[in-house]
Amino acid sequence: MVRAGIERAGRILDAAAGLIARYGYDKTSVSDIARTAGIAKGAVYQEFASKEAVLEALLLRQTHRLARTTTEAVTADPQGGRLSAIYRHALEALAADPLMRALYTADSQTLGDLVRGYGPERYAPRQRWAVAFVVRMQEAGLIRTDLDAQSVAHVLAIISTGLISIESTVGSEAAPPLESTLDAVAALLAGGFEGDADADPTEGRRAFTDFIATPLSGDGTQSPEPTG
Amino acid sequence: MVRAGIERAGRILDAAAGLIARYGYDKTSVSDIARTAGIAKGAVYQEFASKEAVLEALLLRQTHRLARTTTEAVTADPQGGRLSAIYRHALEALAADPLMRALYTADSQTLGDLVRGYGPERYAPRQRWAVAFVVRMQEAGLIRTDLDAQSVAHVLAIISTGLISIESTVGSEAAPPLESTLDAVAALLAGGFEGDADADPTEGRRAFTDFIATPLSGDGTQSPEPTG
Repeated sequence: MVRAGIERAGRILDAAAGLIARYGYDKTSVSDIARTAGIAKGAVYQEFASKEAVLEALLLRQTHRLARTTTEAVTADPQGGRLSAIYRHALEALAADPLMRALYTADSQTLGDLVRGYGPERYAPRQRWAVAFVVRMQEAGLIRTDLDAQSVAHVLAIISTGLISIESTVGSEAAPPLESTLDAVAALLAGGFEGDADADPTEGRRAFTDFIATPLSGDGTQSPEPTG
Repeated sequence: MVRAGIERAGRILDAAAGLIARYGYDKTSVSDIARTAGIAKGAVYQEFASKEAVLEALLLRQTHRLARTTTEAVTADPQGGRLSAIYRHALEALAADPLMRALYTADSQTLGDLVRGYGPERYAPRQRWAVAFVVRMQEAGLIRTDLDAQSVAHVLAIISTGLISIESTVGSEAAPPLESTLDAVAALLAGGFEGDADADPTEGRRAFTDFIATPLSGDGTQSPEPTG
Protein backbone atom coordinates (compact mmCIF):
# COMPACT_ATOMS: atom_id res chain seq x y z
CA MET A 1 0.00 0.00 0.00
CA VAL A 2 2.77 2.40 0.92
CA ARG A 3 4.66 1.59 -2.28
CA ALA A 4 1.53 2.11 -4.36
CA GLY A 5 1.10 5.47 -2.62
CA ILE A 6 4.65 6.52 -3.42
CA GLU A 7 4.21 5.52 -7.06
CA ARG A 8 0.95 7.41 -7.30
CA ALA A 9 2.48 10.45 -5.58
CA GLY A 10 5.29 10.33 -8.14
CA ARG A 11 2.81 10.19 -11.01
CA ILE A 12 0.94 13.18 -9.58
CA LEU A 13 4.18 15.12 -9.30
CA ASP A 14 5.16 14.23 -12.89
CA ALA A 15 1.79 15.48 -14.11
CA ALA A 16 2.02 18.66 -12.04
CA ALA A 17 5.59 19.33 -13.25
CA GLY A 18 4.57 19.13 -16.91
CA LEU A 19 1.50 21.31 -16.44
CA ILE A 20 3.27 23.96 -14.35
CA ALA A 21 6.23 24.15 -16.74
CA ARG A 22 3.77 24.66 -19.60
CA TYR A 23 0.94 26.75 -18.14
CA GLY A 24 2.27 28.05 -14.82
CA TYR A 25 1.18 27.19 -11.28
CA ASP A 26 -1.73 29.61 -11.12
CA LYS A 27 -3.36 28.22 -14.25
CA THR A 28 -2.90 24.58 -13.16
CA SER A 29 -5.78 23.08 -11.14
CA VAL A 30 -5.94 19.89 -9.09
CA SER A 31 -8.46 18.62 -11.69
CA ASP A 32 -5.92 19.21 -14.47
CA ILE A 33 -3.30 17.34 -12.47
CA ALA A 34 -5.64 14.41 -11.83
CA ARG A 35 -6.68 14.21 -15.49
CA THR A 36 -3.06 14.30 -16.72
CA ALA A 37 -2.02 11.69 -14.14
CA GLY A 38 -4.95 9.51 -15.23
CA ILE A 39 -6.47 9.27 -11.75
CA ALA A 40 -9.51 10.65 -9.95
CA LYS A 41 -9.32 14.07 -8.32
CA GLY A 42 -10.09 12.45 -4.95
CA ALA A 43 -7.01 10.26 -5.34
CA VAL A 44 -4.83 13.39 -5.58
CA TYR A 45 -6.24 14.52 -2.25
CA GLN A 46 -5.40 11.12 -0.76
CA GLU A 47 -1.75 11.89 -1.47
CA PHE A 48 -1.61 15.66 -0.95
CA ALA A 49 -3.72 17.91 1.24
CA SER A 50 -3.82 20.75 -1.32
CA LYS A 51 -2.43 22.11 -4.58
CA GLU A 52 0.08 23.99 -2.45
CA ALA A 53 1.25 20.70 -0.91
CA VAL A 54 1.78 19.33 -4.44
CA LEU A 55 3.93 22.37 -5.28
CA GLU A 56 5.93 21.96 -2.10
CA ALA A 57 6.63 18.29 -2.75
CA LEU A 58 7.51 19.12 -6.34
CA LEU A 59 9.97 21.82 -5.30
CA LEU A 60 11.63 19.39 -2.93
CA ARG A 61 11.89 16.65 -5.55
CA GLN A 62 13.23 19.10 -8.11
CA THR A 63 15.81 20.44 -5.66
CA HIS A 64 17.02 16.89 -5.05
CA ARG A 65 17.24 16.25 -8.80
CA LEU A 66 19.21 19.45 -9.36
CA ALA A 67 21.55 18.41 -6.54
CA ARG A 68 22.07 15.01 -8.16
CA THR A 69 22.74 16.51 -11.62
CA THR A 70 25.18 19.00 -10.10
CA THR A 71 26.96 16.29 -8.10
CA GLU A 72 27.45 14.19 -11.23
CA ALA A 73 28.89 17.17 -13.14
CA VAL A 74 31.15 18.16 -10.23
CA THR A 75 32.41 14.57 -9.91
CA ALA A 76 33.14 14.24 -13.63
CA ASP A 77 35.06 17.54 -13.79
CA PRO A 78 38.80 17.39 -12.81
CA GLN A 79 38.57 20.98 -11.50
CA GLY A 80 35.04 20.28 -10.20
CA GLY A 81 35.87 20.99 -6.57
CA ARG A 82 36.65 24.68 -7.08
CA LEU A 83 33.91 27.10 -6.04
CA SER A 84 33.69 28.54 -9.55
CA ALA A 85 33.23 25.05 -11.03
CA ILE A 86 30.70 23.85 -8.43
CA TYR A 87 28.65 27.00 -8.85
CA ARG A 88 28.83 26.90 -12.62
CA HIS A 89 27.60 23.31 -12.69
CA ALA A 90 24.77 24.21 -10.29
CA LEU A 91 23.69 27.21 -12.38
CA GLU A 92 23.81 25.14 -15.56
CA ALA A 93 21.51 22.55 -13.99
CA LEU A 94 19.16 25.26 -12.70
CA ALA A 95 19.00 27.11 -16.03
CA ALA A 96 18.28 23.87 -17.90
CA ASP A 97 15.31 22.98 -15.68
CA PRO A 98 12.05 24.09 -17.33
CA LEU A 99 10.03 23.71 -14.13
CA MET A 100 12.35 25.86 -12.05
CA ARG A 101 12.51 28.48 -14.80
CA ALA A 102 8.73 28.56 -15.12
CA LEU A 103 8.28 28.90 -11.38
CA TYR A 104 10.88 31.60 -10.98
CA THR A 105 9.82 33.67 -13.96
CA ALA A 106 6.09 33.33 -14.69
CA ASP A 107 5.17 32.30 -11.14
CA SER A 108 7.66 34.27 -9.08
CA GLN A 109 4.80 36.01 -7.28
CA THR A 110 3.22 32.67 -6.35
CA LEU A 111 6.51 31.26 -5.11
CA GLY A 112 7.19 34.47 -3.21
CA ASP A 113 3.81 34.33 -1.47
CA LEU A 114 4.33 30.67 -0.64
CA VAL A 115 7.79 31.24 0.82
CA ARG A 116 6.77 34.39 2.68
CA GLY A 117 3.85 32.44 4.12
CA TYR A 118 6.31 30.11 5.86
CA GLY A 119 8.25 32.97 7.42
CA PRO A 120 12.03 33.19 7.68
CA GLU A 121 12.27 29.86 9.53
CA ARG A 122 11.40 28.06 6.34
CA TYR A 123 14.41 29.37 4.46
CA ALA A 124 16.73 29.12 7.44
CA PRO A 125 17.77 25.43 7.06
CA ARG A 126 18.84 25.98 3.44
CA GLN A 127 20.74 29.07 4.47
CA ARG A 128 22.51 27.28 7.33
CA TRP A 129 23.41 24.53 4.86
CA ALA A 130 24.95 27.05 2.44
CA VAL A 131 26.85 28.86 5.19
CA ALA A 132 28.24 25.56 6.53
CA PHE A 133 29.38 24.67 3.00
CA VAL A 134 31.15 28.03 2.61
CA VAL A 135 32.87 27.56 5.99
CA ARG A 136 34.14 24.13 4.97
CA MET A 137 35.38 25.55 1.64
CA GLN A 138 37.17 28.28 3.60
CA GLU A 139 38.82 25.67 5.84
CA ALA A 140 40.00 23.84 2.72
CA GLY A 141 41.53 27.07 1.36
CA LEU A 142 39.05 27.09 -1.54
CA ILE A 143 37.19 30.27 -0.47
CA ARG A 144 39.02 33.31 0.89
CA THR A 145 38.73 33.69 4.63
CA ASP A 146 38.67 37.50 4.93
CA LEU A 147 34.93 37.57 4.06
CA ASP A 148 32.28 36.28 6.41
CA ALA A 149 30.69 33.03 5.33
CA GLN A 150 27.11 34.26 5.72
CA SER A 151 27.66 37.14 3.26
CA VAL A 152 29.47 34.93 0.75
CA ALA A 153 26.59 32.41 0.88
CA HIS A 154 24.06 35.21 0.46
CA VAL A 155 25.87 36.70 -2.55
CA LEU A 156 25.92 33.24 -4.18
CA ALA A 157 22.14 33.01 -3.59
CA ILE A 158 21.73 36.52 -5.05
CA ILE A 159 23.53 35.48 -8.25
CA SER A 160 21.38 32.39 -8.77
CA THR A 161 18.17 34.28 -7.98
CA GLY A 162 19.24 37.03 -10.36
CA LEU A 163 20.15 34.62 -13.15
CA ILE A 164 16.70 33.04 -13.04
CA SER A 165 14.64 36.15 -12.42
CA ILE A 166 16.37 38.49 -14.89
CA GLU A 167 14.50 36.69 -17.67
CA SER A 168 11.24 38.21 -16.48
CA THR A 169 12.60 41.76 -16.75
CA VAL A 170 14.99 41.43 -19.70
CA GLY A 171 13.60 38.55 -21.70
CA SER A 172 15.89 35.77 -22.82
CA GLU A 173 16.20 37.18 -26.38
CA ALA A 174 18.10 40.25 -25.16
CA ALA A 175 20.52 38.33 -22.95
CA PRO A 176 23.93 37.08 -24.14
CA PRO A 177 24.27 33.29 -24.61
CA LEU A 178 24.02 31.39 -21.32
CA GLU A 179 27.50 29.92 -21.84
CA SER A 180 29.16 33.37 -21.97
CA THR A 181 27.24 34.50 -18.91
CA LEU A 182 28.33 31.42 -16.99
CA ASP A 183 31.94 31.92 -18.16
CA ALA A 184 31.81 35.45 -16.73
CA VAL A 185 30.24 34.27 -13.45
CA ALA A 186 32.90 31.55 -13.10
CA ALA A 187 35.70 34.08 -13.80
CA LEU A 188 34.15 36.47 -11.28
CA LEU A 189 34.02 33.82 -8.55
CA ALA A 190 37.48 32.44 -9.36
CA GLY A 191 39.05 35.89 -9.02
CA GLY A 192 36.78 37.32 -6.35
CA PHE A 193 35.84 34.55 -3.90
CA GLU A 194 38.27 31.66 -4.36
CA GLY A 195 41.13 31.35 -1.91
CA ASP A 196 44.60 29.90 -2.30
CA ALA A 197 45.29 29.01 -5.97
CA ASP A 198 47.22 25.92 -4.79
CA ALA A 199 44.39 24.55 -2.66
CA ASP A 200 43.33 21.01 -3.50
CA PRO A 201 40.00 20.96 -5.37
CA THR A 202 39.45 17.33 -4.31
CA GLU A 203 38.50 18.62 -0.88
CA GLY A 204 35.87 20.91 -2.43
CA ARG A 205 34.32 18.03 -4.29
CA ARG A 206 34.17 16.05 -1.06
CA ALA A 207 32.65 19.02 0.79
CA PHE A 208 29.98 19.40 -1.86
CA THR A 209 29.00 15.72 -2.08
CA ASP A 210 28.94 15.45 1.74
CA PHE A 211 26.67 18.44 1.98
CA ILE A 212 24.39 17.25 -0.79
CA ALA A 213 23.97 14.00 1.15
CA THR A 214 22.85 15.96 4.26
CA PRO A 215 19.07 16.36 4.56
CA LEU A 216 18.17 20.01 4.04
CA SER A 217 15.80 20.24 6.95
CA GLY A 218 14.35 18.32 9.82
CA ASP A 219 11.01 20.11 9.81
CA GLY A 220 9.17 17.03 8.56
CA THR A 221 7.36 18.85 5.74
CA GLN A 222 9.88 18.19 3.02
CA SER A 223 8.80 14.87 1.61
CA PRO A 224 5.54 13.80 0.02
CA GLU A 225 3.68 11.78 2.63
CA PRO A 226 1.96 8.86 0.96
CA THR A 227 -1.28 8.29 2.78
CA GLY A 228 -2.88 5.87 0.30
CA MET B 1 0.32 75.91 -19.80
CA VAL B 2 3.22 73.56 -20.46
CA ARG B 3 4.85 74.44 -17.13
CA ALA B 4 1.57 73.93 -15.27
CA GLY B 5 1.29 70.55 -16.98
CA ILE B 6 4.80 69.53 -15.92
CA GLU B 7 4.07 70.57 -12.33
CA ARG B 8 0.83 68.66 -12.33
CA ALA B 9 2.52 65.62 -13.88
CA GLY B 10 5.12 65.79 -11.11
CA ARG B 11 2.42 65.91 -8.43
CA ILE B 12 0.72 62.90 -9.98
CA LEU B 13 3.99 60.98 -9.99
CA ASP B 14 4.68 61.90 -6.35
CA ALA B 15 1.22 60.63 -5.38
CA ALA B 16 1.66 57.44 -7.41
CA ALA B 17 5.13 56.81 -5.94
CA GLY B 18 3.83 57.02 -2.37
CA LEU B 19 0.82 54.80 -3.04
CA ILE B 20 2.77 52.17 -4.98
CA ALA B 21 5.55 52.01 -2.36
CA ARG B 22 2.86 51.48 0.31
CA TYR B 23 0.18 49.36 -1.35
CA GLY B 24 1.78 48.07 -4.56
CA TYR B 25 0.96 48.90 -8.19
CA ASP B 26 -1.90 46.44 -8.57
CA LYS B 27 -3.78 47.83 -5.56
CA THR B 28 -3.30 51.46 -6.63
CA SER B 29 -6.02 52.93 -8.87
CA VAL B 30 -6.07 56.11 -10.94
CA SER B 31 -8.79 57.37 -8.56
CA ASP B 32 -6.45 56.82 -5.58
CA ILE B 33 -3.70 58.70 -7.38
CA ALA B 34 -6.02 61.61 -8.22
CA ARG B 35 -7.33 61.81 -4.65
CA THR B 36 -3.82 61.78 -3.15
CA ALA B 37 -2.61 64.38 -5.67
CA GLY B 38 -5.64 66.53 -4.82
CA ILE B 39 -6.90 66.74 -8.41
CA ALA B 40 -9.78 65.31 -10.42
CA LYS B 41 -9.43 61.88 -12.01
CA GLY B 42 -9.96 63.47 -15.44
CA ALA B 43 -6.94 65.70 -14.83
CA VAL B 44 -4.76 62.59 -14.40
CA TYR B 45 -5.90 61.43 -17.82
CA GLN B 46 -5.00 64.83 -19.27
CA GLU B 47 -1.38 64.10 -18.28
CA PHE B 48 -1.17 60.34 -18.75
CA ALA B 49 -3.06 58.04 -21.09
CA SER B 50 -3.33 55.22 -18.54
CA LYS B 51 -2.18 53.91 -15.17
CA GLU B 52 0.51 52.03 -17.09
CA ALA B 53 1.76 55.33 -18.55
CA VAL B 54 2.01 56.72 -14.99
CA LEU B 55 4.11 53.72 -13.97
CA GLU B 56 6.36 54.13 -16.99
CA ALA B 57 6.98 57.81 -16.32
CA LEU B 58 7.57 57.00 -12.66
CA LEU B 59 10.13 54.33 -13.49
CA LEU B 60 11.97 56.76 -15.74
CA ARG B 61 11.99 59.51 -13.11
CA GLN B 62 13.13 57.08 -10.43
CA THR B 63 15.92 55.74 -12.67
CA HIS B 64 17.16 59.31 -13.19
CA ARG B 65 17.06 59.97 -9.45
CA LEU B 66 18.99 56.79 -8.70
CA ALA B 67 21.55 57.82 -11.31
CA ARG B 68 21.90 61.24 -9.67
CA THR B 69 22.29 59.76 -6.16
CA THR B 70 24.88 57.29 -7.45
CA THR B 71 26.80 60.01 -9.30
CA GLU B 72 26.99 62.12 -6.14
CA ALA B 73 28.29 59.18 -4.12
CA VAL B 74 30.80 58.19 -6.82
CA THR B 75 32.04 61.79 -7.05
CA ALA B 76 32.46 62.15 -3.27
CA ASP B 77 34.40 58.87 -2.93
CA PRO B 78 38.19 59.04 -3.60
CA GLN B 79 38.11 55.45 -4.90
CA GLY B 80 34.70 56.10 -6.49
CA GLY B 81 35.86 55.39 -10.04
CA ARG B 82 36.61 51.72 -9.45
CA LEU B 83 34.00 49.27 -10.71
CA SER B 84 33.51 47.83 -7.22
CA ALA B 85 32.87 51.32 -5.81
CA ILE B 86 30.56 52.48 -8.62
CA TYR B 87 28.53 49.34 -8.37
CA ARG B 88 28.39 49.43 -4.59
CA HIS B 89 27.10 53.00 -4.64
CA ALA B 90 24.51 52.07 -7.27
CA LEU B 91 23.28 49.06 -5.27
CA GLU B 92 23.11 51.14 -2.09
CA ALA B 93 20.92 53.71 -3.87
CA LEU B 94 18.72 50.97 -5.32
CA ALA B 95 18.31 49.11 -2.03
CA ALA B 96 17.39 52.35 -0.23
CA ASP B 97 14.62 53.22 -2.69
CA PRO B 98 11.24 52.09 -1.32
CA LEU B 99 9.49 52.46 -4.69
CA MET B 100 12.00 50.30 -6.56
CA ARG B 101 11.94 47.69 -3.79
CA ALA B 102 8.14 47.59 -3.78
CA LEU B 103 8.03 47.23 -7.54
CA TYR B 104 10.67 44.54 -7.71
CA THR B 105 9.38 42.48 -4.80
CA ALA B 106 5.59 42.79 -4.40
CA ASP B 107 4.97 43.82 -8.02
CA SER B 108 7.63 41.86 -9.86
CA GLN B 109 4.96 40.10 -11.89
CA THR B 110 3.43 43.43 -12.96
CA LEU B 111 6.81 44.86 -13.92
CA GLY B 112 7.68 41.66 -15.75
CA ASP B 113 4.45 41.77 -17.77
CA LEU B 114 5.00 45.44 -18.56
CA VAL B 115 8.56 44.90 -19.74
CA ARG B 116 7.77 41.72 -21.66
CA GLY B 117 4.96 43.64 -23.39
CA TYR B 118 7.54 45.98 -24.89
CA GLY B 119 9.61 43.14 -26.28
CA PRO B 120 13.41 42.96 -26.25
CA GLU B 121 13.79 46.29 -28.09
CA ARG B 122 12.64 48.10 -24.97
CA TYR B 123 15.49 46.81 -22.84
CA ALA B 124 18.06 47.07 -25.64
CA PRO B 125 19.02 50.78 -25.17
CA ARG B 126 19.79 50.23 -21.47
CA GLN B 127 21.79 47.17 -22.33
CA ARG B 128 23.80 48.97 -25.04
CA TRP B 129 24.47 51.71 -22.50
CA ALA B 130 25.80 49.22 -19.94
CA VAL B 131 27.96 47.43 -22.51
CA ALA B 132 29.44 50.74 -23.72
CA PHE B 133 30.25 51.64 -20.12
CA VAL B 134 32.02 48.30 -19.57
CA VAL B 135 34.02 48.78 -22.80
CA ARG B 136 35.16 52.21 -21.67
CA MET B 137 36.13 50.84 -18.25
CA GLN B 138 38.09 48.10 -20.02
CA GLU B 139 39.91 50.72 -22.13
CA ALA B 140 40.80 52.57 -18.92
CA GLY B 141 42.24 49.36 -17.42
CA LEU B 142 39.51 49.32 -14.75
CA ILE B 143 37.79 46.13 -15.96
CA ARG B 144 39.75 43.10 -17.15
CA THR B 145 39.79 42.71 -20.91
CA ASP B 146 39.80 38.92 -21.20
CA LEU B 147 36.01 38.80 -20.66
CA ASP B 148 33.55 40.06 -23.24
CA ALA B 149 31.83 43.31 -22.30
CA GLN B 150 28.32 42.03 -22.97
CA SER B 151 28.66 39.17 -20.51
CA VAL B 152 30.24 41.38 -17.84
CA ALA B 153 27.37 43.88 -18.21
CA HIS B 154 24.83 41.06 -18.01
CA VAL B 155 26.39 39.59 -14.86
CA LEU B 156 26.26 43.04 -13.23
CA ALA B 157 22.55 43.24 -14.15
CA ILE B 158 22.04 39.73 -12.71
CA ILE B 159 23.55 40.78 -9.38
CA SER B 160 21.33 43.87 -9.05
CA THR B 161 18.22 41.94 -10.10
CA GLY B 162 19.11 39.19 -7.63
CA LEU B 163 19.76 41.62 -4.77
CA ILE B 164 16.31 43.17 -5.18
CA SER B 165 14.34 40.03 -5.97
CA ILE B 166 15.87 37.71 -3.37
CA GLU B 167 13.74 39.47 -0.74
CA SER B 168 10.62 37.91 -2.21
CA THR B 169 11.99 34.39 -1.84
CA VAL B 170 14.12 34.73 1.29
CA GLY B 171 12.55 37.58 3.20
CA SER B 172 14.68 40.40 4.48
CA GLU B 173 14.71 38.97 8.06
CA ALA B 174 16.74 35.95 7.00
CA ALA B 175 19.33 37.90 4.99
CA PRO B 176 22.60 39.18 6.48
CA PRO B 177 22.86 42.98 6.97
CA LEU B 178 22.88 44.88 3.67
CA GLU B 179 26.29 46.39 4.48
CA SER B 180 27.95 42.96 4.77
CA THR B 181 26.32 41.80 1.56
CA LEU B 182 27.55 44.90 -0.26
CA ASP B 183 31.04 44.42 1.21
CA ALA B 184 31.07 40.89 -0.21
CA VAL B 185 29.78 42.06 -3.62
CA ALA B 186 32.43 44.81 -3.75
CA ALA B 187 35.17 42.31 -2.81
CA LEU B 188 33.88 39.90 -5.45
CA LEU B 189 33.97 42.54 -8.18
CA ALA B 190 37.31 43.97 -7.09
CA GLY B 191 38.96 40.53 -7.27
CA GLY B 192 36.95 39.09 -10.14
CA PHE B 193 36.19 41.84 -12.65
CA GLU B 194 38.54 44.76 -11.99
CA GLY B 195 41.59 45.11 -14.21
CA ASP B 196 45.01 46.56 -13.54
CA ALA B 197 45.38 47.47 -9.82
CA ASP B 198 47.39 50.57 -10.85
CA ALA B 199 44.72 51.91 -13.21
CA ASP B 200 43.57 55.46 -12.47
CA PRO B 201 40.09 55.48 -10.86
CA THR B 202 39.56 59.09 -12.00
CA GLU B 203 38.94 57.78 -15.50
CA GLY B 204 36.23 55.46 -14.17
CA ARG B 205 34.47 58.34 -12.46
CA ARG B 206 34.57 60.32 -15.69
CA ALA B 207 33.27 57.34 -17.67
CA PHE B 208 30.37 56.94 -15.25
CA THR B 209 29.34 60.60 -15.12
CA ASP B 210 29.61 60.87 -18.94
CA PHE B 211 27.39 57.85 -19.36
CA ILE B 212 24.87 59.03 -16.79
CA ALA B 213 24.57 62.26 -18.79
CA THR B 214 23.75 60.29 -21.97
CA PRO B 215 20.01 59.85 -22.60
CA LEU B 216 19.14 56.21 -22.14
CA SER B 217 16.99 55.92 -25.21
CA GLY B 218 15.75 57.82 -28.20
CA ASP B 219 12.45 56.01 -28.46
CA GLY B 220 10.46 59.07 -27.39
CA THR B 221 8.41 57.23 -24.78
CA GLN B 222 10.64 57.88 -21.82
CA SER B 223 9.39 61.21 -20.49
CA PRO B 224 5.99 62.24 -19.20
CA GLU B 225 4.26 64.16 -21.96
CA PRO B 226 2.41 67.08 -20.45
CA THR B 227 -0.72 67.56 -22.51
CA GLY B 228 -2.54 69.99 -20.17
